[in-house]
Amino acid sequence: MNILHGNAVVGQSGGPTAAINATLAGVIRGALSAKADGVIDTLYGMRNGIEGFLDERLINLTDIFSDESKIKILEQTPSAALGSCRKKMKSPEVDPETYERLIEIFKKYNIRYFFYIGGNDSMDTVSKLSKFAADHDYEMRVVGVPKTVDNDLAATDHTPGFGSAAKFVAVTMKELIRDISVYSMKAVTIVEIMGRDAGWLTTAAALPVISGGKGPDLVYLPERTFDPDKFIESINELQKDHPALIVAVSEGIKFPDGRYVGEGLGGRKVDAFGHVALSGAGKVLEDLVKEKVGCKVRSIELNLPQRCAAHIASLTDITESVGVGKAAVAYAVEGKTGIMATIDRAEGDEYSVTFGAANIAEIANAVRGVPDEYINETSDGITEAGINYLKPLIMGECDVIYDNGMPAHIVL
Amino acid sequence: MNILHGNAVVGQSGGPTAAINATLAGVIRGALSAKADGVIDTLYGMRNGIEGFLDERLINLTDIFSDESKIKILEQTPSAALGSCRKKMKSPEVDPETYERLIEIFKKYNIRYFFYIGGNDSMDTVSKLSKFAADHDYEMRVVGVPKTVDNDLAATDHTPGFGSAAKFVAVTMKELIRDISVYSMKAVTIVEIMGRDAGWLTTAAALPVISGGKGPDLVYLPERTFDPDKFIESINELQKDHPALIVAVSEGIKFPDGRYVGEGLGGRKVDAFGHVALSGAGKVLEDLVKEKVGCKVRSIELNLPQRCAAHIASLTDITESVGVGKAAVAYAVEGKTGIMATIDRAEGDEYSVTFGAANIAEIANAVRGVPDEYINETSDGITEAGINYLKPLIMGECDVIYDNGMPAHIVL
Repeated sequence: MNILHGNAVVGQSGGPTAAINATLAGVIRGALSAKADGVIDTLYGMRNGIEGFLDERLINLTDIFSDESKIKILEQTPSAALGSCRKKMKSPEVDPETYERLIEIFKKYNIRYFFYIGGNDSMDTVSKLSKFAADHDYEMRVVGVPKTVDNDLAATDHTPGFGSAAKFVAVTMKELIRDISVYSMKAVTIVEIMGRDAGWLTTAAALPVISGGKGPDLVYLPERTFDPDKFIESINELQKDHPALIVAVSEGIKFPDGRYVGEGLGGRKVDAFGHVALSGAGKVLEDLVKEKVGCKVRSIELNLPQRCAAHIASLTDITESVGVGKAAVAYAVEGKTGIMATIDRAEGDEYSVTFGAANIAEIANAVRGVPDEYINETSDGITEAGINYLKPLIMGECDVIYDNGMPAHIVL
Repeated sequence: MNILHGNAVVGQSGGPTAAINATLAGVIRGALSAKADGVIDTLYGMRNGIEGFLDERLINLTDIFSDESKIKILEQTPSAALGSCRKKMKSPEVDPETYERLIEIFKKYNIRYFFYIGGNDSMDTVSKLSKFAADHDYEMRVVGVPKTVDNDLAATDHTPGFGSAAKFVAVTMKELIRDISVYSMKAVTIVEIMGRDAGWLTTAAALPVISGGKGPDLVYLPERTFDPDKFIESINELQKDHPALIVAVSEGIKFPDGRYVGEGLGGRKVDAFGHVALSGAGKVLEDLVKEKVGCKVRSIELNLPQRCAAHIASLTDITESVGVGKAAVAYAVEGKTGIMATIDRAEGDEYSVTFGAANIAEIANAVRGVPDEYINETSDGITEAGINYLKPLIMGECDVIYDNGMPAHIVL
């Protein structure tokens, strides 16, 4: 093993999750252990991802987290404690100044380990940086650590943060099903769930079936085209059996002509990454039911709590999120670079995972959708295979530390 | 004490809460105890409130809940397990047939105790029924038990269900504050909270200040007129200090001309009670910020989870909700009728409550708003006195029983 002595830096990027700080805690635990081994000296945290790094906005995490009790609170704090950014790095050919500046800061702080916790766009940064460092003979190990509530990263069985978001969705759906069932009149409740291109989080809406109850009446994912006529037909058919229906729908479902349902009547808007900005698939379906069925109808957008409701985090998710952060450090210390740490599910009936390392080139900018075998034949529900995949990811509740009736958080 | 032997019936009415079943559990516990004393024989549950009672849709709760473990699960099940209704009773003079039918069913089942768990409109039903029974020499004790997330009932310090809804709002606000603080760009997040005429639930958004953090930047209640110009001025002023703002707003805030902000550009709609149906105070404020400030803006409607998120229920609320249900039975057994059981806060620094009984005439159709001393001078925040009132109500977490990663519920 080629031991590389020096300092490390860690950043968080992209949308926050309930588990991205648990992964940060894992990286801190890994770095503290590598410090004890005399390999990594100081672990810096970059404020607001690579953007803050370019401004040298660094904090000394080794000092701040010398106290174990603080690491425990960090593990239960939602959102990115270091701050985040949505910067998409250009290639060194297009933007050489930025890369020269990066090398300058790496040298100034003797950064030999670079950990970046994020989703697809962040893995693209890891890919570019690891290649650039290698091409310019700057010895540095660049390791990506996955995070996204969307669960759409390639090469990993699932992503840290997904299990907690899925648990929030499942628990909320179960509670909403109780709520909407109290009146005896015809009604439709539409629940809009995050997921632009992949319907993973919406599949979790089907989970109440494993917890002594019924699930939603209809579930629509972006992996299938949404047919408004068939939807209204299903509503009418189902209401013959019971009056109060509940429908789960991904924000990213599309009409047969390729337009997002959530675009409704407005024009197309795009964000910094060229993604179409959506709002309101639920609202559009609400209007559809109002017009075509005429019963009471309400739409509920689960919105940001999906990614920050750490009070109902999945113990499985938080434990794995810490684990994958530690594994990332271990891989870097071993000599790996240009990789993303992964969660690999073992074969067999009993759920267990190991951590792995995947070549970053396999992952960056790839989107993994919900597979066909998890979606039912009528494209409006989740199969048993899908439920079996999801079930272990939401298991277990964290022993949350409370402070005056609310979960304790750390603010860096 | 005049001992009245016979059967009892209990119903739930109005919008569900996370604690209305805890109160039902309290009534069941009270009735089982009165059965042991040889006073109440069978406790019936009416499906869908007074509507189902008129159809004789009754279930035998004494039989169903002979098992203590089922009562425990009922206590943690959100929404109204018996179903609910929104029927507003007409007076006996206007609708004598309904009252004759009621007396007929009372006699048929030998109902001598009538418990009705609900809000303002339900207390009106209690008032009418108790008067009618007395006027017609049918000996029956009619007792109301409060419930509403709105906390707007008169004669009680607070209402069962409010504490849990307030805890959900407080915890969610704290989590959202973490979430919105990750980026370094200007942004406004508007959180719309339930409360048509009273801003109680929105006051709970201010609670994160007692839990090691900051609260929302601005809080607007229906108790004060909403001034759009002053709002935009405050946003601009606050963003000079920090870029990401969060605003809590009651669904029922009104413009100076008396129109609901949530009415936006649409016309007025009214529900079965003649209340104006609202949607979108948050959306209207979102559009306002988009136009006048131009920064990134998002609105979040907390929606139904506010009243059904039993997984984060307040232990104080659930304990008191059970207690007030038991107290209602005890009062009826003692001979009281035409009353609502109340929660009375003891004087002094240490929080403690006793249960009381208030004349139903004092309560029915009265609305208790947030008092002046809980709202700050600039009408955009909550005072320390307000925080001190709220704080004990959200204290403590229930020891929730889980079933496959989701809280266990009972379905009747």
